[in-house]
Amino acid sequence: MAVAAAGELLDLLSREVRELSLGCTPEVVRIDGPPDPVQFLRDFVMPNRPCIITNAIAHWPALRLWSNSYLQSQLAHRSVSCHFTPDGRADALVQAPQSADVGSKSSHSDGGDLEGEGPANEIVFASSLVEVLPFPTALECVLSSSCEDRSVAYLQQQNNCFPLEFSALSEDVDSDIAWASEALGCKPEAVNLWIGTQESVTSFHKDHYENLYAVVSGEKHFTLLPPTDVHRMYVKKYPAAHYERTDSGSLVLKRDSPTAWVPWSSVDPFPKNAERQTAESQHPRYFGGPLAFECTVRAGELLYLPSLWFHHVRQSPDSEGRTVAINYWYDMQFDMKYAYFNFVECLAASSSTLETISIRSSS
Amino acid sequence: MAVAAAGELLDLLSREVRELSLGCTPEVVRIDGPPDPVQFLRDFVMPNRPCIITNAIAHWPALRLWSNSYLQSQLAHRSVSCHFTPDGRADALVQAPQSADVGSKSSHSDGGDLEGEGPANEIVFASSLVEVLPFPTALECVLSSSCEDRSVAYLQQQNNCFPLEFSALSEDVDSDIAWASEALGCKPEAVNLWIGTQESVTSFHKDHYENLYAVVSGEKHFTLLPPTDVHRMYVKKYPAAHYERTDSGSLVLKRDSPTAWVPWSSVDPFPKNAERQTAESQHPRYFGGPLAFECTVRAGELLYLPSLWFHHVRQSPDSEGRTVAINYWYDMQFDMKYAYFNFVECLAASSSTLETISIRSSS
Repeated sequence: MAVAAAGELLDLLSREVRELSLGCTPEVVRIDGPPDPVQFLRDFVMPNRPCIITNAIAHWPALRLWSNSYLQSQLAHRSVSCHFTPDGRADALVQAPQSADVGSKSSHSDGGDLEGEGPANEIVFASSLVEVLPFPTALECVLSSSCEDRSVAYLQQQNNCFPLEFSALSEDVDSDIAWASEALGCKPEAVNLWIGTQESVTSFHKDHYENLYAVVSGEKHFTLLPPTDVHRMYVKKYPAAHYERTDSGSLVLKRDSPTAWVPWSSVDPFPKNAERQTAESQHPRYFGGPLAFECTVRAGELLYLPSLWFHHVRQSPDSEGRTVAINYWYDMQFDMKYAYFNFVECLAASSSTLETISIRSSS
Repeated sequence: MAVAAAGELLDLLSREVRELSLGCTPEVVRIDGPPDPVQFLRDFVMPNRPCIITNAIAHWPALRLWSNSYLQSQLAHRSVSCHFTPDGRADALVQAPQSADVGSKSSHSDGGDLEGEGPANEIVFASSLVEVLPFPTALECVLSSSCEDRSVAYLQQQNNCFPLEFSALSEDVDSDIAWASEALGCKPEAVNLWIGTQESVTSFHKDHYENLYAVVSGEKHFTLLPPTDVHRMYVKKYPAAHYERTDSGSLVLKRDSPTAWVPWSSVDPFPKNAERQTAESQHPRYFGGPLAFECTVRAGELLYLPSLWFHHVRQSPDSEGRTVAINYWYDMQFDMKYAYFNFVECLAASSSTLETISIRSSS
């Protein structure tokens, strides 16, 4: 009888994709100027390979226009969805605090518990509080996110917010990425605007979209892993929770009722120094395996982030203290490659401790 | 502990690909006229989906010119590689006969054994005998293949034989399929000519190429299974053998020395009536699973046969008694989709009796 741990087989797959197609050095290629649609499909979408395209959005008026004062003036009378968290981590795993008051970064335990069911100190999947505010107020909240004792605000509504809430800016960018629309055979399903600061971090996750991510101002730092590394993401189900605002204005975390379970990657690729050793021992396949693809997308650059790639995103502000980006989600093909991914994800998920799964063959 | 047979998981993958992308009715779509390169990549190559294209080669002079007498005249002084087998099954599994004389379809056991090592009656992978002959002689052999007591000849040399041996016909067809070359970013790696009769059958196998298969005269009948059905192909390793011609002119099967092992599908999708029950019990995943994709490619039509699809091919002759086709092999991308296939193939191959493999997870 031959026994091979499923984790080892999946490691082979992960390494083979690098050797064949992505390159053993985890580097995101830069190409100068927009690819033609055939090249984009053949060299990037089909092999599910990311790239950064320079000089693809150089003609956008947004690149020179979108100062804070311009945005304040264009959107003076618009309302927008603003996301609040105590610490800049929306859609992220959070240790449910002993204190109900988690709105202040300097909050101390006051003896309260996480509201809802679950025990204190459990790990939950926390969604931000979304408040609809006049844009000038929202931008002020974002810009003051770095101040102590303030919760962190992030303009990051993802349900096609750009045409819905920021239509006053529509002349400043293209409504789609023309060569991508031609290649993919459709217009974007959603276009989203992002205005945030270095306080906001997006945790590892994947999207079922082909993503074209344009940075208008500041920088975005992406940490990327291909879909074939799903077994290194330690995806587990966590109880859903969300922030609510108390009468005093602080944020409190509440478990969703009825309890909902969200599958999410357990990996924080940048643990604090004091927590690094614990993180490495908890997630050895991530920290001990091939390096992630790290890249910085600068103002004026466009990242093609292929469907189902896991991505963790940080940002650096421009001279006005914010990072501004706009992304285009195109429908992905739910085809053979997607079915293969589901198969591999199913194997990876069949146990939270992959080492105990074996592929057994008696011959 | 949860135990799921690997065969069941692979069945799920096989079904999901049909539901998502290929269609639950196993039908090869027909499109009228050549697709543009973007459409070809996006709708067929990327999702690894076959199609038949009508009116793509209507401008080829070959369609009206290639009578037997025209071919005899154009190639009067050329030598070509002609493949001989006793029964029309080259590159096929054959039960090693008790008789060494397998050249005649009416041969009887004369007490001789398969030459080489191995026991009599074992199943071997038999390659054809290739003889270089003047084209007129070769065509005569092909056309008389249906006669009793004659071995079966098939012009089916696959190493780029069209430009190498049939260059006198090069003006009659295109040297590549222009829109496919543009989509795939390269010229064909090989162009092959096929002239055969209904006596010749190609057994189930896959190629590491994107294949554009044009029928010039007669009909080709393809039985197709997607790569995600690899576990239904019962691929096993068989000892390699080949036909040689004896002094008396008949064909004898010899095992290769030193022994070589060839992985090949064990499935004959069209067993004789008397053997059908045995075939079904030996290969239940093939005969009990989703139907194969059956299609007939007629004169003037072009089949896109995606890389790694298993294909079994039969043919019907035209009024002159032969089927003529020409195919273009383009390099495939060895990318993430290919790595996924290797992973699945490895699972499928890890035991010849998949039922005994289990994915075990202790939670």
